[in-house]
Amino acid sequence: MKTRAAVAWKAGAPLTIETIDIEGPKAGEVLVEVKATGVCHTDYYTLSGADPEGIFPAILGHEGAGIVREVGAGVTSLKPGDHVIPLYTPECRQCKTCLSQRSNLCTAIRATQGKGLMPDGTSRFHCDADPVFHYMGCSTFANFTVLPEIALAKVREDAPFDKICYIGCGVTTGIGAVINTAKVWPGANVAVFGLGGIGLNVLQGARMVGADKIIGIDLNPERVAMAKKFGMTHFINPDEVGRDKVVQAIVDLTGGGADFSFECIGNTQVMRQALECCHRGWGESIIIGVAGAGQEISTRPFQLVTGRVWKGTAFGGARGRTDVPKIVDWYMEGKINIDDLITHTMPLDKINDAFDLMHEGKSIRSVVVY
Amino acid sequence: MKTRAAVAWKAGAPLTIETIDIEGPKAGEVLVEVKATGVCHTDYYTLSGADPEGIFPAILGHEGAGIVREVGAGVTSLKPGDHVIPLYTPECRQCKTCLSQRSNLCTAIRATQGKGLMPDGTSRFHCDADPVFHYMGCSTFANFTVLPEIALAKVREDAPFDKICYIGCGVTTGIGAVINTAKVWPGANVAVFGLGGIGLNVLQGARMVGADKIIGIDLNPERVAMAKKFGMTHFINPDEVGRDKVVQAIVDLTGGGADFSFECIGNTQVMRQALECCHRGWGESIIIGVAGAGQEISTRPFQLVTGRVWKGTAFGGARGRTDVPKIVDWYMEGKINIDDLITHTMPLDKINDAFDLMHEGKSIRSVVVY
Repeated sequence: MKTRAAVAWKAGAPLTIETIDIEGPKAGEVLVEVKATGVCHTDYYTLSGADPEGIFPAILGHEGAGIVREVGAGVTSLKPGDHVIPLYTPECRQCKTCLSQRSNLCTAIRATQGKGLMPDGTSRFHCDADPVFHYMGCSTFANFTVLPEIALAKVREDAPFDKICYIGCGVTTGIGAVINTAKVWPGANVAVFGLGGIGLNVLQGARMVGADKIIGIDLNPERVAMAKKFGMTHFINPDEVGRDKVVQAIVDLTGGGADFSFECIGNTQVMRQALECCHRGWGESIIIGVAGAGQEISTRPFQLVTGRVWKGTAFGGARGRTDVPKIVDWYMEGKINIDDLITHTMPLDKINDAFDLMHEGKSIRSVVVY
Repeated sequence: MKTRAAVAWKAGAPLTIETIDIEGPKAGEVLVEVKATGVCHTDYYTLSGADPEGIFPAILGHEGAGIVREVGAGVTSLKPGDHVIPLYTPECRQCKTCLSQRSNLCTAIRATQGKGLMPDGTSRFHCDADPVFHYMGCSTFANFTVLPEIALAKVREDAPFDKICYIGCGVTTGIGAVINTAKVWPGANVAVFGLGGIGLNVLQGARMVGADKIIGIDLNPERVAMAKKFGMTHFINPDEVGRDKVVQAIVDLTGGGADFSFECIGNTQVMRQALECCHRGWGESIIIGVAGAGQEISTRPFQLVTGRVWKGTAFGGARGRTDVPKIVDWYMEGKINIDDLITHTMPLDKINDAFDLMHEGKSIRSVVVY
């Protein structure tokens, strides 16, 4: 069959809308009609050429929501008509990592996914007989896409696609970091470095679990109003307190340091500050942001020996098929706010606008609605 | 009254045995007759002059065992005749850290202890009317010493001083790192970098809690026999596998990486290897060794984002008054081996021999018996 798709032909070039061939689902696979997709900074990163693992030509996009249209042989957990969110971190429930119950980083299809291919080592997308690669196992910048059954979370049917698509990445990453990776406790003091989309979701995760002081740190004071709406109780602008005095400001504000801190930028110097602002004895710092290729974090080991803990998180430590449907429920129940984070929507043929808005820092999240 | 003591007059010089004045215990303090003391690498580090916080003249020593001889006003938990182990990490059970139940790093007397003084800001030791400083709140290189009540663990009276003194630092640091900080689970694979005294105690801690593979890493093959006795199941010599291939060797040996690793050396490059040999998704690395002043650890944040955790530990995460008596029991019950770690004993006037043996790498632990 055919699908419309935004194809990334090469790094640094705008996407072009094409009609391409898509093969139906093979065994264990599912054909999904994508109804909406967020445009995430990770798509931007890959398209920019900065991602050393970027592969072209590819159909980008990994933050979607849609409807199952066809299932391949052996698929038992999904049927046509089911509403789903694609998972760039699948959940096979069979691999060593899934069975460990200690991590969400399922390895079942990691090798082929990293190569832009389906688990059988081939692509389902072709343009003029040439293969077009999958991206993060999702490729949601296409009206139809194919995913493995283990990479789809089944969600309730009354949830709006143009909002819950954001749960496919940013929402779950931020909220999951709070509840799965950090396990923030009620009354904890939390520091959030970077008040973009991820930071805002960390804020509302911290609020949801009953954190006490929720301190936002950002160079941009224009972000304060929205951050307060999402739970921020205190704001620190490094340019006001002094960029080398941010740690002390947080220590002072919390009477000793943050119980938890989250780096939501991808800046290795900020990652160090995020660690060092944590409370002696038990404070934990969670790295969410993705640093540039080859960059390193560093600190004095004394910071760890005196009880601070340095961690990271991917997809918020969430097991996709298990946890994503719960977050959809929380949205529908009003426990979390997604609507205010979707600042722009557009049809597929305007998708390059989403990249331009991101480049200019003018959007929190743009969503393409098919 | 008077006590014999080994005094460190200045960095780099041998200790000299002196008869000095010691004041009796003030309110909340306890006079202890030290019956035995280990000589630890931390004493060596301070005496060498490398410790930026070293204060002279001082009575070093922090790994003792002895008997309460007199208690000051208001002391309720100890009485003359009680057997005790001095604690350089006290346990007041009242400060924010103690009450947090998340850390053993009691802050009750931290400020004065760091200055070589008792909590009232003075020293109990004088020589020709000049004060001699306390060290790590313990000063066990003296036949009598004074400590705050909160810095003494009461232990059973049938335990031999010349063995349980080692529980005052090295034994608890190693075993505690396994059980308190890492919480190694039965069946875990463990990597231990450095097979000196701390490393050997980590090994036996890992064995005690039922670890599976217990991998020792050391440049010195002469340490293998003793390490096996303490629970090591596999040995890696970095000079045999290649110093840049240690991480891969551990990943191969464990089918993916260590569940827990421990750095017991104080080498920041090894700290990095210890982190990076951990299993993707959940492996935790615990820094025990003390790095040189100003040295830093570094890694790519990707190591953390993909699930590894970087931690440190001090005094094995043990709450001294609560946990040290238990470890004494474990020794008496034969659960842990201390006897084979005490390679040399000597009287106080031979204490410089202990430093020489350490310098030459010829001892695991030397103990001074009064």
